[in-house]
Amino acid sequence: MDLSEVPTPALVLDRSRLDANTRFMAARATELDVRLRPHMKTAKSADVARVATAGQFGGITVSTLAEARYFLAHGFTDITYAVGLAPGRIDEALALVRNGAKLNVLTDSPAVAAALAGRAAATTLPRPLSVLIEIDCGDGRGGLQPDAPELTGLAGMLDAPKLQLAGVLTHAGHSYACRSRDEIAGIAEQERAAAVFAAGRLRAAGHACETVSVGSTPTATHAHELDGVSEMRPGVYMFGDLDQVGLGSLPLERLAVSVLASVIGVYPDRVLIDAGGLALSKDASAQRHGTDIGYGLVMNLQGELLPGAHVAKANQEHGIVKGVQQLAPGDRLRVLPNHVCMTAAAHPGYYVVEGGTQVTARWPRINGWEQWR
Amino acid sequence: MDLSEVPTPALVLDRSRLDANTRFMAARATELDVRLRPHMKTAKSADVARVATAGQFGGITVSTLAEARYFLAHGFTDITYAVGLAPGRIDEALALVRNGAKLNVLTDSPAVAAALAGRAAATTLPRPLSVLIEIDCGDGRGGLQPDAPELTGLAGMLDAPKLQLAGVLTHAGHSYACRSRDEIAGIAEQERAAAVFAAGRLRAAGHACETVSVGSTPTATHAHELDGVSEMRPGVYMFGDLDQVGLGSLPLERLAVSVLASVIGVYPDRVLIDAGGLALSKDASAQRHGTDIGYGLVMNLQGELLPGAHVAKANQEHGIVKGVQQLAPGDRLRVLPNHVCMTAAAHPGYYVVEGGTQVTARWPRINGWEQWR
Repeated sequence: MDLSEVPTPALVLDRSRLDANTRFMAARATELDVRLRPHMKTAKSADVARVATAGQFGGITVSTLAEARYFLAHGFTDITYAVGLAPGRIDEALALVRNGAKLNVLTDSPAVAAALAGRAAATTLPRPLSVLIEIDCGDGRGGLQPDAPELTGLAGMLDAPKLQLAGVLTHAGHSYACRSRDEIAGIAEQERAAAVFAAGRLRAAGHACETVSVGSTPTATHAHELDGVSEMRPGVYMFGDLDQVGLGSLPLERLAVSVLASVIGVYPDRVLIDAGGLALSKDASAQRHGTDIGYGLVMNLQGELLPGAHVAKANQEHGIVKGVQQLAPGDRLRVLPNHVCMTAAAHPGYYVVEGGTQVTARWPRINGWEQWR
Repeated sequence: MDLSEVPTPALVLDRSRLDANTRFMAARATELDVRLRPHMKTAKSADVARVATAGQFGGITVSTLAEARYFLAHGFTDITYAVGLAPGRIDEALALVRNGAKLNVLTDSPAVAAALAGRAAATTLPRPLSVLIEIDCGDGRGGLQPDAPELTGLAGMLDAPKLQLAGVLTHAGHSYACRSRDEIAGIAEQERAAAVFAAGRLRAAGHACETVSVGSTPTATHAHELDGVSEMRPGVYMFGDLDQVGLGSLPLERLAVSVLASVIGVYPDRVLIDAGGLALSKDASAQRHGTDIGYGLVMNLQGELLPGAHVAKANQEHGIVKGVQQLAPGDRLRVLPNHVCMTAAAHPGYYVVEGGTQVTARWPRINGWEQWR
């Protein structure tokens, strides 16, 4: 099958670029002397996870328990669920451990810790459920401040039967707001220092703290050193997107995912494509890096960038492309997304190519939250 | 089942508000003396379509051929696919006619018309494939200008075996950019006038033009009259969203869809919920109507608005809620979305309530484009 025959809109993954991106991050992990626990929230694919974990210790990060179940079923056992655990999901977490996962969950809440200790004590588990304490390194999303007095008390609550305090985890989400590599390197140091300081406090209070986990693609790319850190958890680096190009995480030529679209209307100043707000997402993040980005830059079917071409507007099923010429209805284009985590989530999987237009595989994704179970 | 037990994030549909919204639009259709062909692109649900078409002529509008197949399988035969037909989808359209649909497709392109005529002639159909010509009423998305010289030539190309020129269709998408009801009423008149003028030109050239189709929720709500129009195709009115409230399409109290979320973190100035950019969408459209809207206004579990509470930031699986107090992990909130067409698309279906928190039904949705067939 060729990309010219794939029903549109569809997600295309260039395997050769994925390989280059995973090689880059593997080299970074070696350089920084930390384990790489790739975050699968972007790719949501066991096939991609196999590429991203090749040569690594095998642990992964996930953003939903639906992902955790999926990856466990595909042979990935060492899983960190890096979103604060909702009390209503404790039984699901315990079920994953019963089914063979070495699961790490995350909290910063005494109420959740108490509920975890209570539920774990009342169940049979082949191994303890690991718990990480979330630290806020300046992002202002989740986590305790590194110097929060409650930190050691929370650790004490997790010193309970069938639980294991694994360590601390932080995420420098504020690295996405940076304007330069130096600024990102500064945030990376803030991220490292916050996690290492909190870990030191736990150890000083007599707690084990094996895991000191940091990570975002910008900080993993630009950190000068990660002394005292045990692992990093970048995710979007596998594919990249226009926002990451703007942040200097990778060059445009390494963007691995695009949305294949068909031209459905041709006008003097624009063409319409059948990829709109749903197929591309309405994420406008990359627009801050420059004009004429809109909802994505546009390539031809072969993956060559068309200079100046971009999706200027996105309605539900319509993309309005400006800056293209000499196209006819039925012609195909490929859109590089602003924020690939959002874009990919609308699609059931990837049509995999290796540099050209020949589809060599189809790789499914695990989307959503399994609400209908 | 009660909303307090539903796995989060999840989509909640308040049936009593859906009923009020569909009654409102049915009354508008009567008042304006046009047929109502509800656009199912927002709801994507046969259950909702049954409510929206009750008492109407039964025709519906769809935004994908996946929707067309789904609704046909659920007994809806009179279907308008209101997105310009991609040449690569002609065979799918013909298959729908063979399977019993009275399908109307849309184009403004001589190339597509020629391809349609060629493919239709070469196949056996129980009835002709209806074709509508798309007219641009000022939105600048798709369609011929109402006075375009090519209009009658295109109509002539559609006067072909097994095709039937059904009429003209236009969509005033630019009504979404309006700032007042009067301005929307002005766009509604522009929409009406464009479609009626184009229809008049076709009739003067000897073509039948049974269908004169207009529609958007803002223009359907605020139009003064629709003389010469045969049908309207609003869609988002069934649920409403914060953008439509800002546009004056309905009051906040009639918003029928919300995203149920659990609190996963509590901090002095914010709480975290497990509904982020994927569960809510990154559509920021309603933000232009006021401050403190963010990615949605926040209600309690019972559906009562919490004054000042809103999702200030949305990461992939995290929503940062500001303006709430006295919450604990595990508490539940409901978020009113900016743009419900985008938000709903991330979810497999609706947990239906009737004013309270008791779930009375689950209604599935038809998402995506069936790329994996």
